[in-house]
Amino acid sequence: MGPSAPVAQPKHGVTVVFVELPNTKIELLEPLGTDSPIAVFLEKNPSGGMHHICYEVDDILAARDHLVQSGARVLGSGDPKIGAHGKPVLFLHPKDFFGTLIELEQV
Amino acid sequence: MGPSAPVAQPKHGVTVVFVELPNTKIELLEPLGTDSPIAVFLEKNPSGGMHHICYEVDDILAARDHLVQSGARVLGSGDPKIGAHGKPVLFLHPKDFFGTLIELEQV
Repeated sequence: MGPSAPVAQPKHGVTVVFVELPNTKIELLEPLGTDSPIAVFLEKNPSGGMHHICYEVDDILAARDHLVQSGARVLGSGDPKIGAHGKPVLFLHPKDFFGTLIELEQV
Repeated sequence: MGPSAPVAQPKHGVTVVFVELPNTKIELLEPLGTDSPIAVFLEKNPSGGMHHICYEVDDILAARDHLVQSGARVLGSGDPKIGAHGKPVLFLHPKDFFGTLIELEQV
């Protein structure tokens, strides 16, 4: 289970490499283009670091509504977008999760 | 699978809560005492954030030696200590892993 070849994802402003482990997946991110969404993160963390964690969910709308009812804020429009894996994703506000950017992905 | 009750771990300078998920475990850390090993992290990240990621390994000495041969640095003495779960653990230098503090735990 070696790393994947790098894949440029211009829509997401990143080039990614995936490392598949038995029960998790590591996503290595490199900025792509001049307005990459990870550019600010790298300015704040010049050595790199953990950008976000992704939880897989069965029903992303149900998970979103449950979290919003608990007081969490969804980033952007609040509607899922198609993420790097071709599946619906949402991001949650880091300030509502102890400083950690959280992604939900419907699998 | 709710969160565990908080457990004070004076030897490690933290109070921990575990959240068990089907294929991962979230460890929430709160500083304990005046020289907690996570105090500096919270100074740099006042809102909190992801402190480290832990990979489970079958043989921690073999994993360590493999990583050291690849150029990674082990923190501290280089010998495993007993971690918060009562199992042998090691930490690896964040600068050798794109800014991410990595723990190995023998399971």
